[in-house]
Amino acid sequence: MRSLVYPGTFDPITNGHTDLIQRASLLFDRVLVAVAVDTVKDPVFDIHRRVELAQRVLEKIPVVEVLPFSGLLVDFARKQKVPVIMRGLRAVSDFEYELQLAGLNRRMAPDVETLFLTPSEQSAYISSSLVREIARLGGDVSTFVAPLVQAALRERFG
Amino acid sequence: MRSLVYPGTFDPITNGHTDLIQRASLLFDRVLVAVAVDTVKDPVFDIHRRVELAQRVLEKIPVVEVLPFSGLLVDFARKQKVPVIMRGLRAVSDFEYELQLAGLNRRMAPDVETLFLTPSEQSAYISSSLVREIARLGGDVSTFVAPLVQAALRERFG
Amino acid sequence: MRSLVYPGTFDPITNGHTDLIQRASLLFDRVLVAVAVDTVKDPVFDIHRRVELAQRVLEKIPVVEVLPFSGLLVDFARKQKVPVIMRGLRAVSDFEYELQLAGLNRRMAPDVETLFLTPSEQSAYISSSLVREIARLGGDVSTFVAPLVQAALRERFG
Amino acid sequence: MRSLVYPGTFDPITNGHTDLIQRASLLFDRVLVAVAVDTVKDPVFDIHRRVELAQRVLEKIPVVEVLPFSGLLVDFARKQKVPVIMRGLRAVSDFEYELQLAGLNRRMAPDVETLFLTPSEQSAYISSSLVREIARLGGDVSTFVAPLVQAALRERFG
Amino acid sequence: MRSLVYPGTFDPITNGHTDLIQRASLLFDRVLVAVAVDTVKDPVFDIHRRVELAQRVLEKIPVVEVLPFSGLLVDFARKQKVPVIMRGLRAVSDFEYELQLAGLNRRMAPDVETLFLTPSEQSAYISSSLVREIARLGGDVSTFVAPLVQAALRERFG
Amino acid sequence: MRSLVYPGTFDPITNGHTDLIQRASLLFDRVLVAVAVDTVKDPVFDIHRRVELAQRVLEKIPVVEVLPFSGLLVDFARKQKVPVIMRGLRAVSDFEYELQLAGLNRRMAPDVETLFLTPSEQSAYISSSLVREIARLGGDVSTFVAPLVQAALRERFG
Repeated sequence: MRSLVYPGTFDPITNGHTDLIQRASLLFDRVLVAVAVDTVKDPVFDIHRRVELAQRVLEKIPVVEVLPFSGLLVDFARKQKVPVIMRGLRAVSDFEYELQLAGLNRRMAPDVETLFLTPSEQSAYISSSLVREIARLGGDVSTFVAPLVQAALRERFG
Repeated sequence: MRSLVYPGTFDPITNGHTDLIQRASLLFDRVLVAVAVDTVKDPVFDIHRRVELAQRVLEKIPVVEVLPFSGLLVDFARKQKVPVIMRGLRAVSDFEYELQLAGLNRRMAPDVETLFLTPSEQSAYISSSLVREIARLGGDVSTFVAPLVQAALRERFG
Repeated sequence: MRSLVYPGTFDPITNGHTDLIQRASLLFDRVLVAVAVDTVKDPVFDIHRRVELAQRVLEKIPVVEVLPFSGLLVDFARKQKVPVIMRGLRAVSDFEYELQLAGLNRRMAPDVETLFLTPSEQSAYISSSLVREIARLGGDVSTFVAPLVQAALRERFG
Repeated sequence: MRSLVYPGTFDPITNGHTDLIQRASLLFDRVLVAVAVDTVKDPVFDIHRRVELAQRVLEKIPVVEVLPFSGLLVDFARKQKVPVIMRGLRAVSDFEYELQLAGLNRRMAPDVETLFLTPSEQSAYISSSLVREIARLGGDVSTFVAPLVQAALRERFG
Repeated sequence: MRSLVYPGTFDPITNGHTDLIQRASLLFDRVLVAVAVDTVKDPVFDIHRRVELAQRVLEKIPVVEVLPFSGLLVDFARKQKVPVIMRGLRAVSDFEYELQLAGLNRRMAPDVETLFLTPSEQSAYISSSLVREIARLGGDVSTFVAPLVQAALRERFG
Repeated sequence: MRSLVYPGTFDPITNGHTDLIQRASLLFDRVLVAVAVDTVKDPVFDIHRRVELAQRVLEKIPVVEVLPFSGLLVDFARKQKVPVIMRGLRAVSDFEYELQLAGLNRRMAPDVETLFLTPSEQSAYISSSLVREIARLGGDVSTFVAPLVQAALRERFG
């Protein structure tokens, strides 16, 4: 059974994330969406809400499982017996950071591979941070996130 | 009448901003300098001071108007009936972020166009954040900002 | 009257070019499409065919004029009394080259401004060289170029 | 059965290619190495030699098959019933071109996915073109290619 | 006597820093490691500890001297009569920021030159911030920092 | 005695090259300008003319020596007992290629170090290839090259 882990903060899950997960679900038998408990900055949604939103958005894709994780990603991947990390690449700045991270992870866990997918044209401009910013300023995020995430953002930012 | 809006934090306005605004004033009938009320981090100058400094620095350029704005930029542009957003491009990292932003804005407001100008060689290394950092460390910013902005920075950082 | 020049090889004109020209036609009173006679490599279409294809593709946009040009672009812009050069920006590698070119042109002709537009999401992956490559390999280019350009490519590559 | 295609010119196959293929062989049931018959420039080795060198270098990796291909890659992938294209990413300039290509391929064949792997630290600086250049200048390429490729280069460049 | 200054936050000193300093010590008669007192964010180690860790890690390299500094780097360089600033370049994002900084410093002090070295392959993925993050999450940093820095991080993060 | 080698095609030498060489001459006791005999493309000036133009442009800088070289640069550096290679960095695309080259050279000759300098603002947009292009189109290159190089270009392109 081929499985992969797709880690992130998912604050909140966007259509860009869902697009990548859907594609990965066609290539792998199990897609583990790993929501980071520890985040550098104050998240808009706490870990329970971020996991719950991801679960509800992704519930129609059968091979997907959403789990919180803390500590090092490579430790989590090993404990879950998942030998592959998936990351999305949108832009050059993404790429550099991801390359650095993949290099570090390979150094710490040579048995865990990192692979990259690129988003569809429609998702290339979406990021959780831009979605939060637009929602905070009262803008319409309906083309960037699922309806239930839109509702959660509206509730959060009033 | 062709008009454009040039949005930013302007914390504070630099010679790089003034250079772009001057060029834009030769191409458009009205240049609206839009100073963001909402900023991600604590600004060095509050919104009133940022608007005032920009107004005084730009008062000699007849087609320029300086206004504070809050909320989404595309909403502001539409309300002001300005169909063009201008942004400056100095570096690749600017470019990626700007490309992402332009894509998002186009998605939210297909009737608003974003156009980019590049700074003169003399302005390529100037940014508000570097100017603030130099002023904070007691350095000389006289070649990066107008004299009245230099005075405001000196007053602020002592 | 505000006019701009949009220079290129147009070997052949793609939907990406047309998209930019259409947007520019909403902001400027005259859009001069300047087709380079001198090209670094052997073009697929000669200068007459490149001009003709561009003219036919663009004939519905009233403010557009297609002209061949040779020599330095800034000299052409000055002779045509067009104070603005427009360029498209798709990717970081575009950007660097364009920044360098804009800097050189400004040094040679400080009175000529360069401004940049970004393509729509649908056009972000289109370039003349990729279109030529796909056509050469017998692929379908119907979503990248106008029908008459597709016919010209088919005729050319058999 | 999960299969992928790894396309390239392989002029000649390097340790960087072999590294990626080895990793891919752990994740997929079949790895199809597709050697492009049509190359933009004059290759150092003809298509038969490039296929042969790749076959001999890779003969120890059981799931690998080496095949020449011509025409569009997505047509080849579909004909071979391989739904995944693998590409290596070393540098930002790679990334931009690859992103553009992946976008185009997705437009032409939405059912074919592109995924990216990154090379090991030891392979980050290797490219076929640099290997050819070093060999042409009489340098030692023994840490960049397999011994039999080194012999072939020595024979070729004297 | 040729001397250079290598400035940074060194929070904490990594094997990447040590690698660069070692190379520089072969080219220059005096290598001044300048530890910034003023840091934008809260450092993990205070200035005394950062200087002390750097001194102990570097004590075997004879031409090296470690000093704290505050204020503008170019002022420090001039006061120490060091005409050269050394910086490390790992990635494109480093490069852009460094280019901007070098440009600013040259504007403020045309007599001070900035030169760049690149890290070894083994150090390309190391940064102080990633080391801090791994240590904070309980990961093993033994291949990224000297043993005494590892001990200091363990003590700090428990 | 500290010496460095500055390799290139110098087809022809520009004010950007001279700027870097002048700075290097303040830091090193001997600056060896190494003009590549083997070039990928047809050069505008042959190796004798390229060496001669560089010698005449640089004759006022006492520590500079201009020499042709063929074969691998690291072999040349070792034969000349020069332990340092200098390269200029203007743009991100430069940087990536240079990083790759520096990595390869370090792999082939760990005792030879590569260091990078950045051009002055006035030289940031100059490259030999753009200078050749402008001269070929009949443009004025007087601000990009020395008068005697300008004369040589005029003679060459008529």
